[in-house]
Amino acid sequence: MTGTVRDRLARAGSATVANMLLRRGLRNVLMTGVRPLTAGQRPLVGPAYTLRFIPAREDLDILSGYASSDHLHRRAVEECPPGAVLVIDALGSTAAASMGDMMAARLKRRGVSGAVTDGGYRDSAAVARTGLPCFHRDNAPRATPVALHPVALDEPVGCGGVAVYPGDVLLGDADGVVVVPRHLVAEVAAEGADAAAYEEFAALQIERGRSLFGLFPGTSESRQEYDTWVAAGRPGLE
Amino acid sequence: MTGTVRDRLARAGSATVANMLLRRGLRNVLMTGVRPLTAGQRPLVGPAYTLRFIPAREDLDILSGYASSDHLHRRAVEECPPGAVLVIDALGSTAAASMGDMMAARLKRRGVSGAVTDGGYRDSAAVARTGLPCFHRDNAPRATPVALHPVALDEPVGCGGVAVYPGDVLLGDADGVVVVPRHLVAEVAAEGADAAAYEEFAALQIERGRSLFGLFPGTSESRQEYDTWVAAGRPGLE
Amino acid sequence: MTGTVRDRLARAGSATVANMLLRRGLRNVLMTGVRPLTAGQRPLVGPAYTLRFIPAREDLDILSGYASSDHLHRRAVEECPPGAVLVIDALGSTAAASMGDMMAARLKRRGVSGAVTDGGYRDSAAVARTGLPCFHRDNAPRATPVALHPVALDEPVGCGGVAVYPGDVLLGDADGVVVVPRHLVAEVAAEGADAAAYEEFAALQIERGRSLFGLFPGTSESRQEYDTWVAAGRPGLE
Amino acid sequence: MTGTVRDRLARAGSATVANMLLRRGLRNVLMTGVRPLTAGQRPLVGPAYTLRFIPAREDLDILSGYASSDHLHRRAVEECPPGAVLVIDALGSTAAASMGDMMAARLKRRGVSGAVTDGGYRDSAAVARTGLPCFHRDNAPRATPVALHPVALDEPVGCGGVAVYPGDVLLGDADGVVVVPRHLVAEVAAEGADAAAYEEFAALQIERGRSLFGLFPGTSESRQEYDTWVAAGRPGLE
Amino acid sequence: MTGTVRDRLARAGSATVANMLLRRGLRNVLMTGVRPLTAGQRPLVGPAYTLRFIPAREDLDILSGYASSDHLHRRAVEECPPGAVLVIDALGSTAAASMGDMMAARLKRRGVSGAVTDGGYRDSAAVARTGLPCFHRDNAPRATPVALHPVALDEPVGCGGVAVYPGDVLLGDADGVVVVPRHLVAEVAAEGADAAAYEEFAALQIERGRSLFGLFPGTSESRQEYDTWVAAGRPGLE
Amino acid sequence: MTGTVRDRLARAGSATVANMLLRRGLRNVLMTGVRPLTAGQRPLVGPAYTLRFIPAREDLDILSGYASSDHLHRRAVEECPPGAVLVIDALGSTAAASMGDMMAARLKRRGVSGAVTDGGYRDSAAVARTGLPCFHRDNAPRATPVALHPVALDEPVGCGGVAVYPGDVLLGDADGVVVVPRHLVAEVAAEGADAAAYEEFAALQIERGRSLFGLFPGTSESRQEYDTWVAAGRPGLE
Repeated sequence: MTGTVRDRLARAGSATVANMLLRRGLRNVLMTGVRPLTAGQRPLVGPAYTLRFIPAREDLDILSGYASSDHLHRRAVEECPPGAVLVIDALGSTAAASMGDMMAARLKRRGVSGAVTDGGYRDSAAVARTGLPCFHRDNAPRATPVALHPVALDEPVGCGGVAVYPGDVLLGDADGVVVVPRHLVAEVAAEGADAAAYEEFAALQIERGRSLFGLFPGTSESRQEYDTWVAAGRPGLE
Repeated sequence: MTGTVRDRLARAGSATVANMLLRRGLRNVLMTGVRPLTAGQRPLVGPAYTLRFIPAREDLDILSGYASSDHLHRRAVEECPPGAVLVIDALGSTAAASMGDMMAARLKRRGVSGAVTDGGYRDSAAVARTGLPCFHRDNAPRATPVALHPVALDEPVGCGGVAVYPGDVLLGDADGVVVVPRHLVAEVAAEGADAAAYEEFAALQIERGRSLFGLFPGTSESRQEYDTWVAAGRPGLE
Repeated sequence: MTGTVRDRLARAGSATVANMLLRRGLRNVLMTGVRPLTAGQRPLVGPAYTLRFIPAREDLDILSGYASSDHLHRRAVEECPPGAVLVIDALGSTAAASMGDMMAARLKRRGVSGAVTDGGYRDSAAVARTGLPCFHRDNAPRATPVALHPVALDEPVGCGGVAVYPGDVLLGDADGVVVVPRHLVAEVAAEGADAAAYEEFAALQIERGRSLFGLFPGTSESRQEYDTWVAAGRPGLE
Repeated sequence: MTGTVRDRLARAGSATVANMLLRRGLRNVLMTGVRPLTAGQRPLVGPAYTLRFIPAREDLDILSGYASSDHLHRRAVEECPPGAVLVIDALGSTAAASMGDMMAARLKRRGVSGAVTDGGYRDSAAVARTGLPCFHRDNAPRATPVALHPVALDEPVGCGGVAVYPGDVLLGDADGVVVVPRHLVAEVAAEGADAAAYEEFAALQIERGRSLFGLFPGTSESRQEYDTWVAAGRPGLE
Repeated sequence: MTGTVRDRLARAGSATVANMLLRRGLRNVLMTGVRPLTAGQRPLVGPAYTLRFIPAREDLDILSGYASSDHLHRRAVEECPPGAVLVIDALGSTAAASMGDMMAARLKRRGVSGAVTDGGYRDSAAVARTGLPCFHRDNAPRATPVALHPVALDEPVGCGGVAVYPGDVLLGDADGVVVVPRHLVAEVAAEGADAAAYEEFAALQIERGRSLFGLFPGTSESRQEYDTWVAAGRPGLE
Repeated sequence: MTGTVRDRLARAGSATVANMLLRRGLRNVLMTGVRPLTAGQRPLVGPAYTLRFIPAREDLDILSGYASSDHLHRRAVEECPPGAVLVIDALGSTAAASMGDMMAARLKRRGVSGAVTDGGYRDSAAVARTGLPCFHRDNAPRATPVALHPVALDEPVGCGGVAVYPGDVLLGDADGVVVVPRHLVAEVAAEGADAAAYEEFAALQIERGRSLFGLFPGTSESRQEYDTWVAAGRPGLE
């Protein structure tokens, strides 16, 4: 995906993008209970590369397994493409870690855009220090094999109650994480960025004491005012 | 309500005010699961103006409805009196937004004291930037009509498990939101501020190594010490 | 416990220490839903001194009871040994406060290491200001006697779903709180600190672009590299 | 509503009726967590008459209030029209009773069709013995004024997460309770009964070993077979 | 306790008995989420004998421990007095069994009145077959030592969110379990049985078409009617 | 699997079989929150054939999709082998149906042993009437495409928090559903049946007034008594 599309999505924000999808009949695109690891972290944007977990079984899931180079949890970290987002279906469980700080550091180093899980991370403070934009439900300090078994890479999964197909684009910010179906990314990004720009105009008007009626949601008249304002170089906007 | 009463309530704090109400037999006055939108935001005080939601129905609740000037969600934002608190009964649901940043900006501009919902806000970061003191359960980025239908203004509602009658006074701070029945506001504010002042005295004593026994809760002796200390100009208190 | 052991545990962190216990067959050592009162507070380490609550009964649990010097809630605050951690079994309930700011101030003054509850605190902002490292589930501003009755001091309890025997050592940090059985403290602290040191080495390697394979978890080869690195004075580590 | 419509709805069943509404774009029509008071009770059908609760306040909600003839909880029981269904918005709470056995007996005697609450009933065994078809979330033996305050009759409410407007028709059976908007009742009842009849045909075919493909969901061919079967007097159906 | 008291409590029922306690200012006497193991089982009445669990620890809680005759879980079953009720504080957890069918059979054989836990039972069908009146939250088929460690007998505990002091009397029926403080048992039983008798009279009146007003709650007039009816030998009551 | 193994597992029961697995270090084998559709239904035994769902997306999941013969939900019903158990990973969600009565009837007709989901069924009463042993969490009357998208057949899944690998054997009864790893089925069935037989002996002894000590858990002496009793033709057992 182009930098322009990334910028437009980030500028629009997850709540506005979700509205653009709602207009297309898609109601279930925002993950539930998945939040930024740290307040104020920068937005996350990128295509999904998925890792699917199922519950662990004591005879199959042992710490030593992590030494093997074909261990799926390890492979996910080494194979997630640069620029992509590692999306982890952790069954919504924080009974064990979806990832720890060593893995986060490696993802960051490999140029991965970020990580999203409907479970949680261990060593969460250290994960945050890597600077990798991460989203999760809550801390999950227990060792992964205690409760989670990696079973597949890059296949359709559910995360936070939303379907994620490989290649769908994720946008994460303070409001949470929205999933944009591949084929809608470009148009939704454009529409969303435009909506965000109009909101800047509306915010200015509200500051000047104008009521929401006829302003938000916009009308043809207010859209015209907006166009004039844009043509005039967006006066009043620092 | 007078500025003095506002100051006294804010100084007392929600936990102490709840104790004053408990002494009067009112046990259920603190909302459950309702927290400040941002850590460290200033206290919220003001009389309640309510908005009641019921679940949405797809044929009645459509985004375009928001253009109409008699849409109750819009009217709530335009009609909530300056100085009042907009209290939103959102059925405790974060399935859709109780409010977004444009509405918050308008409320702020209109001089409303703040907003409280047992649901959540969308564009929560932008809502926070408006500087309006807001309380909610959690982020709720989905568009309001997806799950909520505004059905009435300024009538008795439940919010966070507490009864809120129009005109009751709300006090919100780090501990949460307490609802003070209209007729008790003045006396509870006075009592609460006094209790808070005594706690400043007690805190000083504790710092000096004094045990809690005979100090907190106060005894007639310790109250006398307190009065002496007040008379002496509260020495030791910066 | 020695300062060395305290330092080693704090350096290792709760997630790593939990792994050391997992290797010894102890899987349920991390409290569930218990988090730091304030982000970035310093780690909590110390032996457990426990307070057990049961549900309150209106005829037995009245505010005035707190005046009596043999009230168990008060005694817990006066009798918890300096250096120890007050561990409160609050039945996982935030229906009433496990502690307030006056008690926290007294514990701090008495040299207690900190407090942990699976319930919550009232006046939480003021509790945080005391500087006492505190962990809880969520704010609980209601007066204690509304829902909790103190029934015993310094006996085995459950807290956050984990067994806590008097004298067990608690370690609390950003990830949560881990309980270390008395007899394992010294060896677990040593192992944990070593694991943490190795992670610093691994982090450096990852920064230089090295893959996790053969590095984390460590192999005999990588451990040798690590030893060389240590012998060389840990180059690259500020 | 006519007996025919009642019969058709009851025959169709709540799950099938919900599908008919789904085809019309209404997705949120089945209450969540609301179940029959007793297994095997007969279906409930009737137009909604609503009672709305808010949380109780100790000074307003006292047992003696129930002696007054204008107490809304009492009035609901005396004023709910024969044939109608008393729908109680109890805030989804079982902290206190939505109704007890005396009220249920009175409703039965007055010819009311049944009662639905998203809270629960007290003396539930005795309520069941009255024979009034009742739906609730779970037992709620505590006295109503402990937690609930009746605030309005026959206005739009939410119940089990679904909007209920006075006059909407409720259908309750083993699967739960579905709410049919007034203006759709007749056509949905007809469609639903037809769908149910086709399912009887399909069930017979399945028993004879036929696959679901081309049978369920029906095709034009299978619908023709069905019409022939109906014309032939539904052979094979006892 | 006398048979009369047992009969009166059973006849009154848990919901009515809770009301008698509410009149005495006791609001929290009904357990939350604790239900009969089998529908229609006979009422449970008897003084409490308690067993307290804390979370298990793998090195202390092993199946073989159950062979030892001083194992507290075993002792509870052998030492609970005939006529008493074994009340198990299981931390509200169904992660492991509070009891199984062998223990239930032994309790039954020893003449114990029944068992109550806020956790659950394993082999629940077999437990039911023993005929011992049992109450729990839900099935809990996992072996006890997996999650629960017995730590004390016959001390004050919490169960289902209610305080239970040894000797308090428990009454369990379809509505759930109510805890009656020792010193109130006799008077509450008498009052409750009287209230139940009046309800039989009121039910007859309702059947005859009488409104609830002036009948339920009773007035001095209706109480007189009731006395006359009793004097007349309760005509109309089979 | 042989009929003998089926009988032994059914006789042992899920709780006892879980203990046999616990002895082998497998602690997480019992599904959480998954219960029989109808009380008293006969035990379910058979190898797992799995269906995996992910959340639905409105543009991909439409009712008409069910007409296509390669629709995975349909194929699961037609392709699940006779004697096997259809295990449905529904993400633990009852927001939509895992299956309805037509599918259940078809599975029954095809000789499938039963169905297990961690979601729920629609037309649950009709599903029960088919006589197919079914387990679920709760009713789920909403149409499947509203919330669930079938994504794969016969691959490893999680169900009720337990890992299920194709071919693992499921045993479901009143206590719930236990998953037995393929390679352990025969030995666990034998051990379990033996344990169940010993429990019959122990139950007889308990009835005769014998204490649990030295009887349950069994000792070498009691096992000898048991062998004698078996040799004698199990006297006392009807």
